[in-house]
Amino acid sequence: MPSDSTPVSFLPSTAAPDASERRLDVVCIGNALVDVLASAPDALLDDLGLVKGTMALVDHVRSGEIYDRMGPTTEASGGSAANTAAGVAALGGRAAFLGRVADDNLGMAFTHDIRSIGVAFDPKPTTAVPGEVVSGHCLVLVTEDAERTMATHLGVASDFGDVDLHDGHLTSTHVVYLEGYLWEQPAAKAAMRGAIELAHANDAAVALTVSDPFCVQNHRSEFLELLDGDLELLFANEEEIMMLFGTSTFEAAAEAVADTGVLAVLTRGAKGSVVVTPSGLIEVPAAPVASVVDTTGAGDLFAAGFLYGITNGLDPEASARLGGICAAEVIAHVGARPQADLRALAVAAGLFG
Amino acid sequence: MPSDSTPVSFLPSTAAPDASERRLDVVCIGNALVDVLASAPDALLDDLGLVKGTMALVDHVRSGEIYDRMGPTTEASGGSAANTAAGVAALGGRAAFLGRVADDNLGMAFTHDIRSIGVAFDPKPTTAVPGEVVSGHCLVLVTEDAERTMATHLGVASDFGDVDLHDGHLTSTHVVYLEGYLWEQPAAKAAMRGAIELAHANDAAVALTVSDPFCVQNHRSEFLELLDGDLELLFANEEEIMMLFGTSTFEAAAEAVADTGVLAVLTRGAKGSVVVTPSGLIEVPAAPVASVVDTTGAGDLFAAGFLYGITNGLDPEASARLGGICAAEVIAHVGARPQADLRALAVAAGLFG
Repeated sequence: MPSDSTPVSFLPSTAAPDASERRLDVVCIGNALVDVLASAPDALLDDLGLVKGTMALVDHVRSGEIYDRMGPTTEASGGSAANTAAGVAALGGRAAFLGRVADDNLGMAFTHDIRSIGVAFDPKPTTAVPGEVVSGHCLVLVTEDAERTMATHLGVASDFGDVDLHDGHLTSTHVVYLEGYLWEQPAAKAAMRGAIELAHANDAAVALTVSDPFCVQNHRSEFLELLDGDLELLFANEEEIMMLFGTSTFEAAAEAVADTGVLAVLTRGAKGSVVVTPSGLIEVPAAPVASVVDTTGAGDLFAAGFLYGITNGLDPEASARLGGICAAEVIAHVGARPQADLRALAVAAGLFG
Repeated sequence: MPSDSTPVSFLPSTAAPDASERRLDVVCIGNALVDVLASAPDALLDDLGLVKGTMALVDHVRSGEIYDRMGPTTEASGGSAANTAAGVAALGGRAAFLGRVADDNLGMAFTHDIRSIGVAFDPKPTTAVPGEVVSGHCLVLVTEDAERTMATHLGVASDFGDVDLHDGHLTSTHVVYLEGYLWEQPAAKAAMRGAIELAHANDAAVALTVSDPFCVQNHRSEFLELLDGDLELLFANEEEIMMLFGTSTFEAAAEAVADTGVLAVLTRGAKGSVVVTPSGLIEVPAAPVASVVDTTGAGDLFAAGFLYGITNGLDPEASARLGGICAAEVIAHVGARPQADLRALAVAAGLFG
């Protein structure tokens, strides 16, 4: 069986230090958000001018307007890259998260939740000013088709910058995983440049999820530039990868990303996933789900499974299978963090001894 | 089929005004709480000195200690009588809730959630002082057997008193429903005396849930006194009713409560429920549940179904069936408020045309 010491095949340097010298499998960087989830009829999305399946950034006033129209809510920690870190930890992996919170209820809940699942998180919380300086939160409207539509008020997460990078984590990890949402914020985007350099200087691989079709639309040329030497690993769904390469078919997009030489993990919902490797495409079927309740976190948990697998001795195909298992767990309930024992699910699927 | 104008059989006066003159089916009075839920191993309950299946009142410091030991949490509005009000509204009933919140995040979330499901709630929020004056919250530890164990920090809910009674609601309802937890607080207990008088002066029935075995232990003689003229309706589970009457069998307790002449609704978990009426006992089987996930709110939602039924033309047996349907819905997911369309479930069960 694979062991922790198997080097990750896509590490950029042949002089990578032995895995045992690295404290972490994955460092995830992204917006620290608490999700506020409610079921919602399709008509409400139209009324509110929200586009189904996407995330919109909103200010405090607009966030309040949307919240006022939502039904009874459930609050639970979220944030795309934070969900991924939680998933890696739930599988038994060593994960850290970098993000910014305020010292208010939401920030404290976020901190409690991510630490309690075993993720290293050592922020310097910003002092909260009620109504003005608050922790970030994401209003999630779940329609009857289990699709989620999000409106995020970033709060202090929008101030994420160089000062929030944690050298001790970034210099001792196999992979640094960045969420594309950060490209919406100039200071965070600039900080990501530093994070990529620090990662590569320490022989860590850099992974990016493009996060959302709107992110691809807004930052297409920047994401394409990153594929030229800055990234070892790319995560995108079908719609996003086609948008990124401007192709009308998934196959053409997969071919285009193959030409970059970057390992790409492309998720296709119920159709499963495709891993694009230098030696060809690997198609992996989706894991079965009894009933899809809420797709919030599906992509995040897929990434968690893949990242845990690839940093713990699984090959890309098995890693994608593990990603599918983790995604299947999170879409079977409300909320974007795992509720079942992911490690046990992986073992039951024969992925770990 | 029954209609809204059928008078409630247990109303105390034969001169009850016509139902159409009353704005509300049920006014619920209780602690306004936000639940903070996490799954927990049995061993953690022991470590923390918590008694499985019960609710303990804790101060701010102890609440923090327990929270620090809990895994990742989900926050959702709770509060026993508030859950019942939410259930009545979800069935299409006219419900109001009386309880006290602070003007902090938790209080605002509680207010949003209960209003958004259609419950009238018009509190005068107390000014919050972070760390000192806060809205009430209930830490809920859900063990693998789906049982919930609760530690409640009442916060401003502990100041509930006369000033929080809403005359406009109490004088225009069929039923006033009180939670036994309020007897833990002297000011709230005193206020309940006024609420009962106001209800009876306006020909409303008064219902009490004894809430918790610990409440029965602490307030046994007071609860027994209430059965002598103050109550028309009593809710208790098997353990609680045996404790209240000091009997060693459920049957003896049912006989004892029958002697009081108060209509009693006794829940027995998977064994269903027993309605004790002047003309004998009615046994009602439990509604089927595919998988019991979290029993938080089971009793509250049972009461909601029964109260909605009895105030909307159903007989006690059908009302207890409706209670069972509502309880079955809420124990099939995490959290104490209904997620499915309760009205549709009732219609599917043939209870309403």
